[in-house]
Amino acid sequence: VAGIEQFYAEQMFLLDSGQVEEWAQTFTVDGEFASNATPAPAVGREVIAAVAGKAAAQYAEQGVQRRHWLGMVAAEPRGADEAFVRSYALVIETPRGGRAAIRASTLCEDLMVRQDGRWLVRRRKVSRDDLL
Amino acid sequence: VAGIEQFYAEQMFLLDSGQVEEWAQTFTVDGEFASNATPAPAVGREVIAAVAGKAAAQYAEQGVQRRHWLGMVAAEPRGADEAFVRSYALVIETPRGGRAAIRASTLCEDLMVRQDGRWLVRRRKVSRDDLL
Amino acid sequence: VAGIEQFYAEQMFLLDSGQVEEWAQTFTVDGEFASNATPAPAVGREVIAAVAGKAAAQYAEQGVQRRHWLGMVAAEPRGADEAFVRSYALVIETPRGGRAAIRASTLCEDLMVRQDGRWLVRRRKVSRDDLL
Repeated sequence: VAGIEQFYAEQMFLLDSGQVEEWAQTFTVDGEFASNATPAPAVGREVIAAVAGKAAAQYAEQGVQRRHWLGMVAAEPRGADEAFVRSYALVIETPRGGRAAIRASTLCEDLMVRQDGRWLVRRRKVSRDDLL
Repeated sequence: VAGIEQFYAEQMFLLDSGQVEEWAQTFTVDGEFASNATPAPAVGREVIAAVAGKAAAQYAEQGVQRRHWLGMVAAEPRGADEAFVRSYALVIETPRGGRAAIRASTLCEDLMVRQDGRWLVRRRKVSRDDLL
Repeated sequence: VAGIEQFYAEQMFLLDSGQVEEWAQTFTVDGEFASNATPAPAVGREVIAAVAGKAAAQYAEQGVQRRHWLGMVAAEPRGADEAFVRSYALVIETPRGGRAAIRASTLCEDLMVRQDGRWLVRRRKVSRDDLL
């Protein structure tokens, strides 16, 4: 599906560089972020931004640079402006002056919608492999 | 070459989720899987499925989730329905409750053919970097 | 931007397989390679080849296979034959008989130009996450 991989690159760069308000804008207004590491999903851009902001502040304080790698992207179009996308995602962390390491390997399942020509995540479900 | 990366994403998901019969169907009927870690190639879908099934059973028993990442894909078309594809492949493993780690870094060389509009692997050669 | 990802796959394979003269040809004649790990950029193909050749010789001597993974590629066209491309890059190293590990996680920023239908790097800036 055209544009999905570039979308992920831009979306994750926002998160990894701490631009959490812009990150939240990559979800629909009613977007959901669910994970098998948390009891309930984050729902709506404000909550998504708040959760991401808290994590970003901790990483900044610890001097750790995160990088989210999405890959192995399989997109299944559902009509013209919707797609179900399954991918693998790695979180790579590097402490300042230290060694990079994989923090988590996950499966990422996204329901994507295109609004005004722009892809957005309506529902994301992240499954950490260590919790399967 | 259109569709190759999505093919890899789907193919590896089958392997990583233990769907070894479906995995074997991503090779041609006379498909070959060779590796510098094994003395002889696996030839034909039945053998490919059997080899994968044995490994998948071991991983399931040990509670380890594997993820095969292919990337750095360079595809060289050879006519309309054939391509030589070189890629890098990582095997990432996560034990239940443990940390993800790279199990192997490899070079993957595929001779691909398109049959009935669907890409299949005719011959795969995987070279583990630790054995070079 | 069409062809950019395949360009990276081919470019990095040249470096990882020690073909440093061919690697230098993937930069423009006046190409620059800057890194936050070195005080000054390498400028021009001869210098770029020499720097890469020295590193390649060390890795060969140590029996270490490097793999450069670029991913999360976001390309921003600037006219028909120029693009700014931001990506993440990992260096994965495997010692002969040993375990693969991430050597470095980086941000890669490329100014690319197309000459005679072929993408080349005019200016590359690599930022290692451990030095941020």
